[in-house]
Amino acid sequence: MNAIDTMLQHRSIRNFSEKTVEKTVLDQILAAACNGSSMGGMQLFSIIVTQDKAMMQKMAPAHFNQPIATNAPLILTFCADFHRFDRYCECRQTPTDAYHNLQAYQWAVTDALIAAQNACVAAESLGLGLCWLGTITYNTPQFIEALQLPQHVVPVACIPMGYPATNDTPLTAKISWENLVHQETYHESSDEAINQMYAKMENCSNNINMVNDNGFENLAQDYVMRRYKKEDNEYFSQVLKDTLQKQGF
Amino acid sequence: MNAIDTMLQHRSIRNFSEKTVEKTVLDQILAAACNGSSMGGMQLFSIIVTQDKAMMQKMAPAHFNQPIATNAPLILTFCADFHRFDRYCECRQTPTDAYHNLQAYQWAVTDALIAAQNACVAAESLGLGLCWLGTITYNTPQFIEALQLPQHVVPVACIPMGYPATNDTPLTAKISWENLVHQETYHESSDEAINQMYAKMENCSNNINMVNDNGFENLAQDYVMRRYKKEDNEYFSQVLKDTLQKQGF
Repeated sequence: MNAIDTMLQHRSIRNFSEKTVEKTVLDQILAAACNGSSMGGMQLFSIIVTQDKAMMQKMAPAHFNQPIATNAPLILTFCADFHRFDRYCECRQTPTDAYHNLQAYQWAVTDALIAAQNACVAAESLGLGLCWLGTITYNTPQFIEALQLPQHVVPVACIPMGYPATNDTPLTAKISWENLVHQETYHESSDEAINQMYAKMENCSNNINMVNDNGFENLAQDYVMRRYKKEDNEYFSQVLKDTLQKQGF
Repeated sequence: MNAIDTMLQHRSIRNFSEKTVEKTVLDQILAAACNGSSMGGMQLFSIIVTQDKAMMQKMAPAHFNQPIATNAPLILTFCADFHRFDRYCECRQTPTDAYHNLQAYQWAVTDALIAAQNACVAAESLGLGLCWLGTITYNTPQFIEALQLPQHVVPVACIPMGYPATNDTPLTAKISWENLVHQETYHESSDEAINQMYAKMENCSNNINMVNDNGFENLAQDYVMRRYKKEDNEYFSQVLKDTLQKQGF
């Protein structure tokens, strides 16, 4: 499918048909994923393909047992990876400690996420659906252990994908793109502009029902007091800090 | 253009024709950029469009005066942005300090890079060329000042784009995608496998000439001892750490 149409028709898919993702389809997705821009041409990422249901079950608790973590036929985990380049330098008797720091991590995160989004666009252009799992940056120690990631490899994106169970999944209510774009410098928005930006999200029936069911007054409360709470975010920030140190960044 | 063909034909473009990027083309790129997945639907990014040559000149030193920082008709800078969501929470009398930490930064980086790569694929599918500038995560204080970014906004990707000056830019020599993919768990590579993986990069004439011109024995030395040196990376890691603290993450 045309690239721009594919991107404009993106929606989150969390339920998949029984249809297996064919090897020829998966190979196209992986080849496209690996052909994006990369920092200095270093290709600082790796992709772990999970198709074994036992592996999915093993990682499910670290994904808080979301059904999608086990009901997808295929999960791609994208890792920031300086290990391969380290190994290359070792093979050329060149010291490898130049890249064991935050900049190098940021480069590798960027390379991994470029690859991840290429994979998503490729998959959607071939009729697959997908949904990113934010949990991958929460419970990094469990994923590192399950996927046997060596030093200087950190998982940063996790994308279950497969053929959608139904074809009627609605588009997500979003802020209009014009409001996410600034000309030349960042422009502050008035309260009224903010109210208008978030109206579509606040007024979509899913969000109205969620806010009501959880007994909140508005969507902001549901985010801050239930979905992504301060104490959880601070706890998982510390876990991520510890992981970066342990993995050598 | 077809999504997968677009991605497989990606190459870095650093020289542009005089042709202006039409507003209708830019709007399609921006709309596609803003329609990707995002953490909990929060859309934690902003895009700054630079077309004013005075703004490009102002930021050029922070991009180490690379010609592409001023010779492109258009630069898109993608920022991790929790400021907008903070403002929304403020408008709903909801505390905003749940997201002033490393996890929240990682989510916003992810949203911004999803948008950035969508923009790249969209642009390339419409015949434009582009090249990411890694310098954006080096000199963050200068970019934050020039682009007037408020608290909880950090620039993470910078992509000059335009119509290519020529149509004969070769593809970049890369590691074959099969070597970047692991089945179920991460698999360690032998020295021989590493040698084979990097052979294409080592044997391309650009890299051979670069290594020779700089008086090194091999490509690894050129990376570690010239292009991305330890002392620079450690210095710019500290700058990035300071920036994250200053911007409130």
